[in-house]
Amino acid sequence: MLLCSRAIQRSIVQTRKASALTSLNIDTVNPLVKDVEYAVRGPIVIRASEIEAELANGVKKPFDKVIKSNIGDCQAMGQKPISFIRQVVAGCAHPELLDMGVFPADVTERCREFLDGVRGSIGCYSESTGIASIRKNVANFIESRDGYPCDPNNLILTNGASSSVKLILEMFISSKEKSGALIPIPQYPLYSATISEFGMQQVGYYLSEENDWSINISELKRALEEGRKTCNPRVLCIINPGNPTGQVASYNNIKEIIQFCIDEELVLMADEVYQDNVYREGSKFHSFKKVLFDMNAEEGFQMASFHSTSKGFMGECGLRGGYVEVIGLDQDIHYQLNKLQSAQLGSNVVGQVVMDCVVNQPKKGDASYDLFIQEKMGVLKSLDARAKFVYKRLNEIEGITCNEVAGAMYAFPRIHLSEKAIAAAASLGQAADFMYCLALLEETGICVIPGSGFKQEPGTYHFRMTILPPMDDLKVFLDKLSVFHTQFMEKYSD
Amino acid sequence: MLLCSRAIQRSIVQTRKASALTSLNIDTVNPLVKDVEYAVRGPIVIRASEIEAELANGVKKPFDKVIKSNIGDCQAMGQKPISFIRQVVAGCAHPELLDMGVFPADVTERCREFLDGVRGSIGCYSESTGIASIRKNVANFIESRDGYPCDPNNLILTNGASSSVKLILEMFISSKEKSGALIPIPQYPLYSATISEFGMQQVGYYLSEENDWSINISELKRALEEGRKTCNPRVLCIINPGNPTGQVASYNNIKEIIQFCIDEELVLMADEVYQDNVYREGSKFHSFKKVLFDMNAEEGFQMASFHSTSKGFMGECGLRGGYVEVIGLDQDIHYQLNKLQSAQLGSNVVGQVVMDCVVNQPKKGDASYDLFIQEKMGVLKSLDARAKFVYKRLNEIEGITCNEVAGAMYAFPRIHLSEKAIAAAASLGQAADFMYCLALLEETGICVIPGSGFKQEPGTYHFRMTILPPMDDLKVFLDKLSVFHTQFMEKYSD
Repeated sequence: MLLCSRAIQRSIVQTRKASALTSLNIDTVNPLVKDVEYAVRGPIVIRASEIEAELANGVKKPFDKVIKSNIGDCQAMGQKPISFIRQVVAGCAHPELLDMGVFPADVTERCREFLDGVRGSIGCYSESTGIASIRKNVANFIESRDGYPCDPNNLILTNGASSSVKLILEMFISSKEKSGALIPIPQYPLYSATISEFGMQQVGYYLSEENDWSINISELKRALEEGRKTCNPRVLCIINPGNPTGQVASYNNIKEIIQFCIDEELVLMADEVYQDNVYREGSKFHSFKKVLFDMNAEEGFQMASFHSTSKGFMGECGLRGGYVEVIGLDQDIHYQLNKLQSAQLGSNVVGQVVMDCVVNQPKKGDASYDLFIQEKMGVLKSLDARAKFVYKRLNEIEGITCNEVAGAMYAFPRIHLSEKAIAAAASLGQAADFMYCLALLEETGICVIPGSGFKQEPGTYHFRMTILPPMDDLKVFLDKLSVFHTQFMEKYSD
Repeated sequence: MLLCSRAIQRSIVQTRKASALTSLNIDTVNPLVKDVEYAVRGPIVIRASEIEAELANGVKKPFDKVIKSNIGDCQAMGQKPISFIRQVVAGCAHPELLDMGVFPADVTERCREFLDGVRGSIGCYSESTGIASIRKNVANFIESRDGYPCDPNNLILTNGASSSVKLILEMFISSKEKSGALIPIPQYPLYSATISEFGMQQVGYYLSEENDWSINISELKRALEEGRKTCNPRVLCIINPGNPTGQVASYNNIKEIIQFCIDEELVLMADEVYQDNVYREGSKFHSFKKVLFDMNAEEGFQMASFHSTSKGFMGECGLRGGYVEVIGLDQDIHYQLNKLQSAQLGSNVVGQVVMDCVVNQPKKGDASYDLFIQEKMGVLKSLDARAKFVYKRLNEIEGITCNEVAGAMYAFPRIHLSEKAIAAAASLGQAADFMYCLALLEETGICVIPGSGFKQEPGTYHFRMTILPPMDDLKVFLDKLSVFHTQFMEKYSD
C-alpha cells in the first residue's frame, strides 16, 4: 500500500516534469541576455581550453602548448605582482604579520593606518561607494594628475572597471524611447554586451584605421545622425588608450570630442583604464577631465571616467579593483547610484586596497620605494619593448598591416584575406577572420580573437592579440604566425 | 581680440549648459532604478552616520556612541576573523611568506596547492564561473552535506550571494508578459530591490508570525493566484534560515514547498546563506536540494541555492565570496549564465579563496585544526547565546513580542503601537515604525531598521535588529530599548 502510493506520487512527479522543464529554457529566458555577445571569452577561447586539455591527455598536436593571447591578463602571462601591493594585501588580511617584522616599515605603517579606518578588519562591509580613506586618496591622485579639484563624493569604488561601466550605463535605460550609446568600432565588447543586456541600442562610430585608429568628428556626427533615426543617443563611449586598437588620443582630438558632446548634449563615458600604458614616442595620456577643465567647459558637462587595477604596471586582474569618477551629476543621480551600489553592499575590500596602493604609491625615502620603482619600471619598460616588437614584426608579414601600438596592451592587425578565403568561410557560416583564427589555433596553438568579435569596418578583417606573452614566447608566436599566414594565403589564393 | 573670442566661447558653453544638464537627471534617469529601495542602508542608517560624525565633532547627545544593529556585518561588531582563513588569504597574496615559516604547515601547503592551480597568482582572472579547483571543493562540500551528487559545472562563484541572486533573477526578465517572483513578507530587501531594478513584479506571500514565521502553503497559493492576475509568476524565493525573521523551515515544510513548486511549475530560489546559523533546540538546517533528492523529485525540477562567506562562523562580508548551485538547467541556460559572468570577467579571487576555506576546513591532525575549531565554535556558541538573550529580553518588554530567533542573525520583534502613535507618524508622512526607529536612534543611539523596509502585514509594526553586538553592548542596547519603548508608549498612549 505504501509502495503503491509512493509509485503514484512518482508518476505524478514525472508527468509534471515535462511541463516544469519549460519554466526556464532557451525560449523563456530573458531575450536580452540571449543577445549578449562577449568574444574575449567566446568560442575560440573555449576551443583553446579544450586543446589544452587534449594536450594534457597526451593528444598529439603540431605544438606543445597553447599561447593565450586572447585576454589582457598580465600575470597569467608571467608578469610578477608588485611586491609592495601584495605585502599590503597580506598585512591587511592577517594583521598578526605586522608584528613579525616580515614587511618593510612603510607597508606595516600603511596597513595599520588603513585598518584603523575600517574598524580593524577588511572583513567588514565597506561603505557602498567605497572606503572613505581610499576615495580620498583616489581624489588626491586625480588632483595631482590633472591639476584640478576632485571631490571624493564623486568617486565610486567597484569590482573592476567592468562593474562601474555597467553601473553608469544602467542609468540610461529608458522605458520610453530606446536609449542609444555611441561606441567605437572596433570596441571592447564589454560595451556591446552591456548595451544588449540593458536593451539599449549600439550606435557605432568607426575609428579611422588609416589615421592610427583616431576618432574623426565628422564620423561621430554621421553615426549620431544615423543613430537618431532609430533611438535616442545619450552617451558617447570613448576608450583611450584604445582597446582593441591601441591608439592614444591627442590633446586636440580630445578637445574636439568634448566640444562635440557639448554641442550634441551627450554624456561622456571615458574608459581610461590604460592611462599608464603609453608607448609611442611623443604620445601622452591626457585625461578627458583635465582637457575639459582646461577648456573651462566643465559647468553643466556630464561625464564619467573609469580606472582599474587590472592594467597599468600592476595587472591585478583577479583582485577586481576599479573606480569611476562622475562629474556634473546632481544629488538625485548620486543618490540613485549609491542606492544601486548599496543593494550589492559595495565592492570587495581587497580590490579597494589594491586601488589605494595604485593611487598612493611609495614615496622616495620609504623603505619600499626602491624595489617598487624597480618593479614598476621593469614592467612598463618590458611592455614598451613588446609593443614595439609586435608592431614591427607584424608589419614584416606580407598580407598583414598593423598600426603602431601606441598604448594599451593589444595589437589589432588587419589581415588582407582573399575572396576565396572569404567565400570558404561563408560556406561554413563563419566570418572569415573567425575561420582564420580557428585555423591559427588548431595549427599553431596561438589563441587570438577575431576582429568580428570587436566589430570592424565591413569587408575588413582583423584579429586582436595581446602584447603580454613574454618576449621569448612572442618571438615564437610571431614566427609561427608568419608561417601560418603565408600558408593560409597560399591555400586560399584567388 | 583673443580674449573676446574666448569670452564668446564661454558664453556659448554657458548657453548650452542648461540643456546639457538635462542629459541625465531625475526625470531622464532609468525609471526602474528610481523604484529600487534598500532599507538596510536607507535613511535611518544615513542619519546614524551623521550622528556619529556629530559625536566626533563634540556635539552633546544623550549617548556617547551609536550601536549599529542595522546590518549583518559580524566583524564590524567586533567578531574576530578566523585565523586559518586570513592566513590562507595572506599566503596566497604574498607567496614569499610561505618560505618564512610564519604559517602552520597546512596553511602553507594549501596555499602552494592552490597557487599551482591558478598559474601561480591570485592576480590572474579566474574562469568566468570560478576557479575549477574551488568549484570542485564546493561540490564535495555539498555532496557530503546532502548525500547526493553535485556537479562542479552547476556551480558559479560570485562576489557574495547578492551577485548570484541577481544573476539568476536576471534570467527571468521577459519582453512580453511581466515576470513575477514570489517573495516572503517580510523579506530581505535585496529581493525587492533587484525585482524593481529588473522591471519584474513582486508577488508577496506572508510568513505566519503566529507560527514562528513559517511558510504556509495555502498562503503561497493565495499569493500566486493574486499574482497571476497581473503578471506571470515564475520563481519562488525562500530565505531559510530567514532574514529578517530568523525562522528555520522544518523538513516537512520544505517538502510541501517543493511539491508546490512542482504543482505550479515554479523555479525555486533557495537563499541558504545562514545554513550554519541555527540556534533553536530541535531545529536543524535542511537544504532544499537534499529534501528534493530525498523526494526523488529532482528530474525536471529547476532550482538555485545560494551560499556566502559573509555569514556563518566566518563573517567575511568585505571579501565578497559566494556561490550559486543551479539544478535542472539545460546547457543553453548554462551557456547564458556563463556568458553574462564572462563579460564581467568572473568574481574576485580572494572571495573565492575564502569560499574554499569555508567548504574545505582543516581536518583533525592538521596543524591549524585545534585553533580553527576553537575559533569557529567560539563564534557559533556566542551567537547562540546572543540569539537566546535577545529573544528573552525583547519579550520582557511590555508592548513588544518576538518569535524565537531560531536561526540567522536577526530578531524581528513586533512593536504594538497605539493609534495615536500611528496617527502622529502619518501626520509626518512617515510609517509608524520608521518614526519609532528614528526616535530610538536620536534618543539612544541605537540603529535598527523599521519593518516597513522589509515589508510586513499591514497594520503591524516591527523592526529588525541584528544579534551581532557583543553581549555587553546588547545588554545596554536592550535596557535602553526597554526604557525608550516605555516612554514612547506613554507619550503616545491612546
